[in-house]
Amino acid sequence: MSELRRDPIVGRWVIVDVENPKAPQDFLVEPHHYEDSTNCPFCYGNEYMTPPEIQAFRHEKTLINRAGWQVRVVPNKFPALQIEGDLDRRGIGLFDMTNGIGAHEVIIETPYHTKDIPDLELDEIEKILEMYCMRFKDLEKDKRFKYIMLFKNFGSSAGATIDHNHTQLIALPMIPKNVLEEITGASKYYEYRDRCIFCDIIRQELEEKERILSQNKNFISFCPYVSRSPFETWIMPRAHKLSYCEISKEEIGDLAKMLKEVLRRMKVALGDPSYNFILHTAPINSEERPGYHWHIEVMPRLSRIAGFEWGTGFYAVATPPEVAIRYLKEARI
Amino acid sequence: MSELRRDPIVGRWVIVDVENPKAPQDFLVEPHHYEDSTNCPFCYGNEYMTPPEIQAFRHEKTLINRAGWQVRVVPNKFPALQIEGDLDRRGIGLFDMTNGIGAHEVIIETPYHTKDIPDLELDEIEKILEMYCMRFKDLEKDKRFKYIMLFKNFGSSAGATIDHNHTQLIALPMIPKNVLEEITGASKYYEYRDRCIFCDIIRQELEEKERILSQNKNFISFCPYVSRSPFETWIMPRAHKLSYCEISKEEIGDLAKMLKEVLRRMKVALGDPSYNFILHTAPINSEERPGYHWHIEVMPRLSRIAGFEWGTGFYAVATPPEVAIRYLKEARI
Repeated sequence: MSELRRDPIVGRWVIVDVENPKAPQDFLVEPHHYEDSTNCPFCYGNEYMTPPEIQAFRHEKTLINRAGWQVRVVPNKFPALQIEGDLDRRGIGLFDMTNGIGAHEVIIETPYHTKDIPDLELDEIEKILEMYCMRFKDLEKDKRFKYIMLFKNFGSSAGATIDHNHTQLIALPMIPKNVLEEITGASKYYEYRDRCIFCDIIRQELEEKERILSQNKNFISFCPYVSRSPFETWIMPRAHKLSYCEISKEEIGDLAKMLKEVLRRMKVALGDPSYNFILHTAPINSEERPGYHWHIEVMPRLSRIAGFEWGTGFYAVATPPEVAIRYLKEARI
Repeated sequence: MSELRRDPIVGRWVIVDVENPKAPQDFLVEPHHYEDSTNCPFCYGNEYMTPPEIQAFRHEKTLINRAGWQVRVVPNKFPALQIEGDLDRRGIGLFDMTNGIGAHEVIIETPYHTKDIPDLELDEIEKILEMYCMRFKDLEKDKRFKYIMLFKNFGSSAGATIDHNHTQLIALPMIPKNVLEEITGASKYYEYRDRCIFCDIIRQELEEKERILSQNKNFISFCPYVSRSPFETWIMPRAHKLSYCEISKEEIGDLAKMLKEVLRRMKVALGDPSYNFILHTAPINSEERPGYHWHIEVMPRLSRIAGFEWGTGFYAVATPPEVAIRYLKEARI
């Protein structure tokens, strides 16, 4: 018999197939491939193909918008939202609308066309993680923005349209629904128990030991009890901090190590799948809600969302996290 | 500049590209194809390949579990949930779980291997719609069930694994999150205004005339102002009724006509895309919430859900409903 499991933060149920769990080879992984780099706008020498750069880490004596960068941030050429203008929120009968104000940036994480995070050196990954923080601090100054969503689509099944390794961020003039649900759920728990629900989840996962993937001084990674997709993995700082930007230098080092390991294990165990990773962090320019705890959620995209998931918000998980963890741990990296 | 639009029921925002809207040919539609029918478990003569049938409309003097049916309902061979057993809800530390109790049925809508609803005769579609209702009435008797989710995955991009035309239903021991959000949103509006929000949406759409696809005596179809995906279309009964099962014989006739037309227009305008359709109806064996209004939501699957949608619950809609409607209306059917 399958199990129904309930997420304690947002109340979502998932159906977990504990009886006939799928192994990695049971999923149809669309093979990831890199197109030829000649026309890649994210490669050295092609900097003119992107809008002018916003920020970059560069080797000494290299010029802006030229080769020689290590991490480069540019506006999205086809932005979902644009930075100039007024919100001008108004009602249209029953409905509400505002102008599409926001920022949509691309963080080109490496000059190497065919390297993803698992293939990079630790100091290269640290630079990426530092850049995330620098972009947050810069965009936070714009008081119109209430949330910055940082996410990565790797591979076409995960929605990537350019295969050169990159992350995107969108600064939004409102707190999005999914984030608000998570924060509201965590706040309710905090009010009731006077404790952070994420800290309690870490504690329980460490006690049960069944779903822990790896640990270091500052971070732990695990496949959550209420995974929405097979092999979903969360990376969580041990320290209770609301925002990603509170990360210390030492923590950046530990996070780089863990992110590399987690993505490397997924790549080996699952055959280089497409994946999304999403940074969950507190809103900006908003009232502080003490029950939150920033973290990263990584989801390999092994199955498609169909009518049942659309309709219910339930997820059917073909590999229980207790089984997924074994494949991830056994991967020879 | 794009527009941000807010759903008045659940508070979700979507980003609508009103500046450079995508036309149907701008989407990469995975061509739909039907496998050879020899081993199709839903074809005449292969009835032994499915679990024994639960219910069917049959030609006179044909035998159960043999050819001669018009609509046939069987248990899903690989059910997400199973009907026997106790729920046995319990806590695991922070988490909640129950046994995977429920019903998971397949409604084989036609014996023709390569015909979907747009290709069927109206009386054939009416039989399908009647069967939905009969299954609801039967499953409602089981007091463990709180919700019946009826949905269709057509085409592999929409999550279908068998290409012979069918619908699925899952009876669940709880009201799923997305449904609860919709009902709660509608109830709040009802308490505040003493009116049904769906009736008000119909009224506004009829007044604005900008997004109406078709109308008949009992139903209207339109591309909603806050679509989540391009060419999303809702079919809504004019009569304020909570549950699908309150449908009258006359309404079934009108719904069959409209469903055929809407799906036919999508098929022609978009090049036979995969789609999901989801029946939104009130919970069963639960307290009645008067602000609800059953309807059907049809979503062609033209783009993939990526990190931004996962993280935020926002959707980026490349074709505004005001533009989508023109292509659907112009389709020669």
